[in-house]
Amino acid sequence: MLQLERIKRLSEKLVEENVDAIILGPSGDWKYLCGLEMHPDERFKAIVVLKDGSYFVISPMIYFVEFENYFPKETEYVIWEDNEGWHKKISKALKDKGLENKKIAINDGCRAIDVIDIMNFYDNSFINGEHFMTNLRIIKDAEELSYMKKAASIADEAFEETIKHIHSGMTEENIKDILVEQLFEKGGEKLSFTPIIASGPNSAMPHYSSYGRTIEDNDVIIMDFGCEYKGYCSDMSRTVFFGEPTNKMIEVWEICNASNLAGEEIGKVGIEMQEVDRAARKVIEDAGYGKYFNNRTGHGIGVSVHEEPQAKEGNITKLQNGMCYSVEPGIYIPGEFGMRTENIMACIDGKSEPLNRARRDMIIIK
Amino acid sequence: MLQLERIKRLSEKLVEENVDAIILGPSGDWKYLCGLEMHPDERFKAIVVLKDGSYFVISPMIYFVEFENYFPKETEYVIWEDNEGWHKKISKALKDKGLENKKIAINDGCRAIDVIDIMNFYDNSFINGEHFMTNLRIIKDAEELSYMKKAASIADEAFEETIKHIHSGMTEENIKDILVEQLFEKGGEKLSFTPIIASGPNSAMPHYSSYGRTIEDNDVIIMDFGCEYKGYCSDMSRTVFFGEPTNKMIEVWEICNASNLAGEEIGKVGIEMQEVDRAARKVIEDAGYGKYFNNRTGHGIGVSVHEEPQAKEGNITKLQNGMCYSVEPGIYIPGEFGMRTENIMACIDGKSEPLNRARRDMIIIK
Repeated sequence: MLQLERIKRLSEKLVEENVDAIILGPSGDWKYLCGLEMHPDERFKAIVVLKDGSYFVISPMIYFVEFENYFPKETEYVIWEDNEGWHKKISKALKDKGLENKKIAINDGCRAIDVIDIMNFYDNSFINGEHFMTNLRIIKDAEELSYMKKAASIADEAFEETIKHIHSGMTEENIKDILVEQLFEKGGEKLSFTPIIASGPNSAMPHYSSYGRTIEDNDVIIMDFGCEYKGYCSDMSRTVFFGEPTNKMIEVWEICNASNLAGEEIGKVGIEMQEVDRAARKVIEDAGYGKYFNNRTGHGIGVSVHEEPQAKEGNITKLQNGMCYSVEPGIYIPGEFGMRTENIMACIDGKSEPLNRARRDMIIIK
Repeated sequence: MLQLERIKRLSEKLVEENVDAIILGPSGDWKYLCGLEMHPDERFKAIVVLKDGSYFVISPMIYFVEFENYFPKETEYVIWEDNEGWHKKISKALKDKGLENKKIAINDGCRAIDVIDIMNFYDNSFINGEHFMTNLRIIKDAEELSYMKKAASIADEAFEETIKHIHSGMTEENIKDILVEQLFEKGGEKLSFTPIIASGPNSAMPHYSSYGRTIEDNDVIIMDFGCEYKGYCSDMSRTVFFGEPTNKMIEVWEICNASNLAGEEIGKVGIEMQEVDRAARKVIEDAGYGKYFNNRTGHGIGVSVHEEPQAKEGNITKLQNGMCYSVEPGIYIPGEFGMRTENIMACIDGKSEPLNRARRDMIIIK
C-alpha cells in the first residue's frame, strides 16, 4: 500500500529543487513507495507526484484491478485502454494538472521511446530526476535495517548449508539448485537475483550467467547470491576451492580477502563513497593485480539489489548512518579464474559493519 | 553470435528512411540479432548500427568478456569502466563516427534518463526507432516458424499432462510448479514468462501474478503459460473448471470460446490486424459482455513473448505470411471471475493457423 509519508517527503524534495512534478515509471521506486513490482514495457504506467504533495496514477486498464490493491481508495487514476492508445490521454492529463511548460523530472523506470512519443503531443522537456527517489531510499530506518539484517543472515545460513553438499560430478546448476532451495528453506521470500555459480575459467566473468559446467578438481567456485526478506535484498559472494588450490590461486584469494577487509574497515560516517573503492583497490593494485579489477568495489542495496550509494571512483556522496552497500572487490584473470568476497555493510552509529556473518576463511572442499 | 545478414537488412531500412544510425539498447532486439539476453540497467550498453552497414558495440568493461562470445572477432567496441562513467565516452564515440547533428533512432531498450544524460554532452536529438527492428522481426522465416511450432507443442503437452494432476487442496502455486516442471520435461528450454495460475476471483485480473490461493470447489482456473525453444516463445491460455461450473460460468466460457474462434478464423493475408480484434470483440459485445473485455485481443510473438503485430483497434498493419500472434479475447468480471482461451496463430500460405493444438473443449476437473 502506498506510503503517503514517503510521497510527502518526495514532494518536499521537489519543492527544494523547484521541480514541478516527477513521473515515476515502474522500478525499485514503486516497490519502495507502494510495494508494487513491475518493469517498464509496452504499456505505459506511472505514478506522477506533484510538488504540492498530490499524486495520480497512470494505469493501463488491464492492470487497474491489481493497482487498486496498492493505492488508497481516494487515489486519482488516468486509465487508458489498449484500443485507444495512451499518448494523447497522458499528455492531456499532464496539461489538465497545469504541467505544461513546467519542470518535470523522470525516474529510471521510463523508456526513452515513450518519453519521445509523449513530447510529440505535449510541449515540455524532461529532466533526469533519478536522484529524487535515490536520495529518499538511500537512508534506511531502523525497520528497514532489521529487514536487511535478516535477509543477510538468511543468505549466510544458506551458504553454510550449501557448501556441505558440494561434491564431485556436480554441475554449476546443481549447486545453484541447492542454494536456491536453502535460501527459501532458511526464510527467504524471493531471490534477489538468480544466483551466480561460476566455476573454473567461468569465474573470470563477474556476471557469468550460465550453469552448464561440471565442477572439476582444483576449481575455483564463486557463489554470488541473495534473497529478499519483506522486500529488502541481501547479496553476498564467497569464493571456495574444490580440491587443492594452486599457489597462484591462494595468492589471489588472499589479496581479494585483504582488499575486501580494507574496503569494509574504512567505512565510517563522513567519508566519501569513493574512498571505499580506493581503499579496496589499493590493496589489489599494490599487489600488482590492478589491471584485473575493472569494476566498481560495490553498490548500494535496499528494495533493489543495485541502488545508491555506489562505492566507486567519482562518487563523492558522504557515508551516513542508515546507508547500506556491498564491498566486493575482485580479481578476474580472463581464461584462468576470478575471485571475490562480498559482504553487505550497513553504517550504524557512525561506523560500517557487515550484515553478513558467514564464515569467510579459505574453504577447500575435497 | 551476431547475424550479420540481419545487421545488413537493418542498415538498408535505415537508408530507406534516411536515418543515419540506430542505438539499440538491450531488449528482444539483441536476442534477435545476436542471442544475448540482457535488460537495461545502470550500466549503459548498446549495439550501434550505421546506415553504411557498419556497427559497433558499447560495453561496460564488466560485460566485455561475455560480449566477446556473441560478436565476431573484428567487432569494434567502445568499452567503459565503472570508475570513469560513460556519458562523455559514448558522446565522443558518436561524434568520432560522424554522428553529430544527425538523425539517430533508438529502440525500446534505452532508458529515458540515459538518453537525457547523453544529450547533455552531445548535440543531437533522437527519434523513436522502435519500428526498425520490429519490422525485421515481424516476419518469421521457415526456420523460425519451426521453432515457434515446437515451442507451442511443448506447451500443449505440458498443459495436457498438468491437468491430470490438479486435485482438491492444491494452491495456485502447486499447479504452477507442476506446469513449470512439465514445460521443462517436454523440452522447453526456458519459461517465456512465469506462468499465471489465477483461480476463483483472481481470474478476473488478466495479469494476476500471485499464487497464494487454494483451489476451491466451483472455481474457474485460468492457466496462461509458455516456454522457449531455441529462443522462440510459446504462450497459451486455457480456462478450466474445478467442480461444476455455474450457468453463468458456462455461458461466459462459451462466449469466450466463440470469440476466440472468430478471432482465429478471420486471419488471412491482407487483412488489417485490427480486424482480428474486431472479429473477436464483436462476439463478446453482441453477447452483452463488452464492458468486461478491456484489453487487446492479442500480441505478436517471437524471440519476445510480446512483440508486433498487435491485434488491437487502430493497428492497420496488414497480415502477411510469416507473422505470428496470439488470439486471446477474454471476459473479466471484477470480484467474480474471468476467462480466456489463447492460441498462437501463424500466417502460412495465406491463412492463419493455430500453432497450439491442445484440447480446447470445456474441461471440468472433479
